[in-house]
Amino acid sequence: MKNILIIGAGKSSSSLIIYLLENSIKEDLFITIGDISIENSSKIINNHSRGKAIIMDIFNENNRKKEIEKADLVISMLPASLHIQAAKDCLEFKKHLVTASYISDEMKSLDEVVKKNGLIFMNEIGLDPGIDHMSAMKVIDNIKNKGGKMLLFESFCGGLVAPESDTNLWNYKFTWNPRNVVLAGQGGAAMFIQEGTYKYIPYHKLFRRTEFLSINEYGKFEAYANRDSLKYRSVYGLDDIPTMYRGTIRRVGFSRAWNIFVQLGMTDDSYTIENSEHMSYRDFVNLFLAYSPSDSVELKLRSYLKIDQDDLIWEKLVELDIFNPNKKIGLKNATPAQMLQKILENSWTLQENDKDMIVMQHLFGFELNGKKQQIESSLVVLGENQSFTAMAKTVGLPVAIAAIKILKKEITTPGVQIPISREVYEPILKELEKCDIKFIEKEVPYLGYNPNNVIG
Amino acid sequence: MKNILIIGAGKSSSSLIIYLLENSIKEDLFITIGDISIENSSKIINNHSRGKAIIMDIFNENNRKKEIEKADLVISMLPASLHIQAAKDCLEFKKHLVTASYISDEMKSLDEVVKKNGLIFMNEIGLDPGIDHMSAMKVIDNIKNKGGKMLLFESFCGGLVAPESDTNLWNYKFTWNPRNVVLAGQGGAAMFIQEGTYKYIPYHKLFRRTEFLSINEYGKFEAYANRDSLKYRSVYGLDDIPTMYRGTIRRVGFSRAWNIFVQLGMTDDSYTIENSEHMSYRDFVNLFLAYSPSDSVELKLRSYLKIDQDDLIWEKLVELDIFNPNKKIGLKNATPAQMLQKILENSWTLQENDKDMIVMQHLFGFELNGKKQQIESSLVVLGENQSFTAMAKTVGLPVAIAAIKILKKEITTPGVQIPISREVYEPILKELEKCDIKFIEKEVPYLGYNPNNVIG
Repeated sequence: MKNILIIGAGKSSSSLIIYLLENSIKEDLFITIGDISIENSSKIINNHSRGKAIIMDIFNENNRKKEIEKADLVISMLPASLHIQAAKDCLEFKKHLVTASYISDEMKSLDEVVKKNGLIFMNEIGLDPGIDHMSAMKVIDNIKNKGGKMLLFESFCGGLVAPESDTNLWNYKFTWNPRNVVLAGQGGAAMFIQEGTYKYIPYHKLFRRTEFLSINEYGKFEAYANRDSLKYRSVYGLDDIPTMYRGTIRRVGFSRAWNIFVQLGMTDDSYTIENSEHMSYRDFVNLFLAYSPSDSVELKLRSYLKIDQDDLIWEKLVELDIFNPNKKIGLKNATPAQMLQKILENSWTLQENDKDMIVMQHLFGFELNGKKQQIESSLVVLGENQSFTAMAKTVGLPVAIAAIKILKKEITTPGVQIPISREVYEPILKELEKCDIKFIEKEVPYLGYNPNNVIG
Repeated sequence: MKNILIIGAGKSSSSLIIYLLENSIKEDLFITIGDISIENSSKIINNHSRGKAIIMDIFNENNRKKEIEKADLVISMLPASLHIQAAKDCLEFKKHLVTASYISDEMKSLDEVVKKNGLIFMNEIGLDPGIDHMSAMKVIDNIKNKGGKMLLFESFCGGLVAPESDTNLWNYKFTWNPRNVVLAGQGGAAMFIQEGTYKYIPYHKLFRRTEFLSINEYGKFEAYANRDSLKYRSVYGLDDIPTMYRGTIRRVGFSRAWNIFVQLGMTDDSYTIENSEHMSYRDFVNLFLAYSPSDSVELKLRSYLKIDQDDLIWEKLVELDIFNPNKKIGLKNATPAQMLQKILENSWTLQENDKDMIVMQHLFGFELNGKKQQIESSLVVLGENQSFTAMAKTVGLPVAIAAIKILKKEITTPGVQIPISREVYEPILKELEKCDIKFIEKEVPYLGYNPNNVIG
């Protein structure tokens, strides 16, 4: 029997745990779930004979090492910055490691010694990063193997609310960490390349430079550019590709309204506001508007950002109740971003029966046998309920599948890695299809990067 | 005879040196000017019997200590980060120190031991910081001494081109470090308080939230908010003041045009551009515009930033020649900010006969004997030529005067300080008036912060 240790089993681990338990007898596995609380995992294990929830403190070295030593493979679902400690212990006791997080430089630096020990440290094997890498590399390798030359790669992903639970004017609810949503796009200009020309978008213009996309029967979406699309050229072996763009998907109209918060300065997380606790939503808005002894917050905002009287973005603000003089923020010494998050959580928190949705789309442009062609590959995953969300499935299942494939020696190449080799992505994508995580591929006319189809 | 050592005598030290030499016989002074080159200072000293230019390397400890030991007072005109080394030597050899730079935390931490040794380390005694502190504190102390209560303090300062040399559409040329102009306002939101309400402006809105001011016969100017006006409340002893605002002065219309660069992302100094050296001005602009197989850079820019066909800001761009496809940037691995600076220097460098201008204005609102009143205090200084610029005079003269007053024991309170005590600002402002650096004070109707004079 092989032992899998999962460290840090948050709410989003349900799909991961259930998949492993469901396969535990067939694959002869035992699953130990270590977390600071056993309440959540006990409920999911539900007395399954092949599972056990234990209390585990990652900062207690003895406790951590003892559990890691007993395992054959460790899955770390901890916050990204804590993986490295688990990684070092895995190295000491010669255990495989799987995480869904971006590979850190510190993690990368273990590669040589991990290889020497014949171990596999698989990272970035969740949704994004994870399924994006695997599904992209599968098509790119196919095109290259046929002798095709890649001309364009655009990739979009978003965590949204399912159509049946889409009940507000923003067509958005928090299905993942709200803080990341509020801070999205900050920290530097977005960079990409289109038809051989580098392009840079500063943060304050990011949400006004969206692009549209359509996803099968789900209709039209929009996407804003991710921070650094350029670095993926070397990761995907596309160093000379003339068009490379990665973006985050929202429902149409979200970004134009979100831009109001950006323009006002409400997403700033770099300073704190005195007396934030006792401020009303209305006071918060007024911090970012000129002082006037006479004019209303509403009129000052409309005038400042030139919002027409009949513009729907105004109704989106009203829906959030941000002009309410009685609702208090209730957070001490908060940054503008934290205060905005509080206001949004008041409106955008998932209700008990709400379901989420993951959407992903890749566009591959290439030249093969003298002909320019394009493939559009799209994925939509719907959540089942608050436990088995689309996010939990798409993050947890690839992790679980990779863990089993490593233990069964179907994945054998050692090293600190991400899932971009055929040996890794092929069996995992195949198994994901069985779990209804399946891309739909279409051949579409080649456009290059030319969204308006203008004849030059 | 007292010895003054000036360390680091750049182009802007001419007024400082000449003032000291002119007073050297009367005050029995000898002036030693240490710099890595003696060419510039020798020319200014012009064989004066009380002056000597020496080659001095601040990084050569023996050299530095030997010269500081011989002096009675040291004036450091080095870049701000290098003062601390001179300060430590001054402490070792018990010498007074004068600098025109913002006081650093490291400098501040020397206060106790400086006091114990009976020394004076005077900082922030140039123009801004310097003349602004002194001229403001003089009026504030006067109001308080009469029993008045401060209600409003607004302070504006700018380095501009003199009206007779004002020959471009921007009404601006570089009269000081161009890099600081390009990066102005970055690094966090501007913060101030108006009528008891905190206000925050994010960088990308800074140049659209300007305020107008008029300065005597020099006409109308505009000002954008400085980074942190709030911290000056405690510095000036105005902790409970309801309105506190500091801003930077430009000619009217500058900021609205400058905002184009901010909106495009051209002032970003956080990343470098591949192939910047061989890019044309036009290529540079195109980095920040959407890709199009057909449309011109001009039309894309007009459309993106909604610039009307007859808007003067367009002519300002054309005047800078930024659409030129043949002029090359010529800087390797440059940031957008460095590339923009290069383009601007091509247009905004002072010509040989150009003169500069310093403008400063304070507004003091207060209540005295039950009546609300306001004082407007304004300073304009014009440059004489490329050597005796308004900037050189307004930075150098207060430093020189302070040095003499310290040596003559007219300023005696020891410690690491800035010029906000009456003992310091009174004699220095009096002497500055003799050098034609003189504020004009006017009583004006009290408005509070209410720029449009709206009746609420």
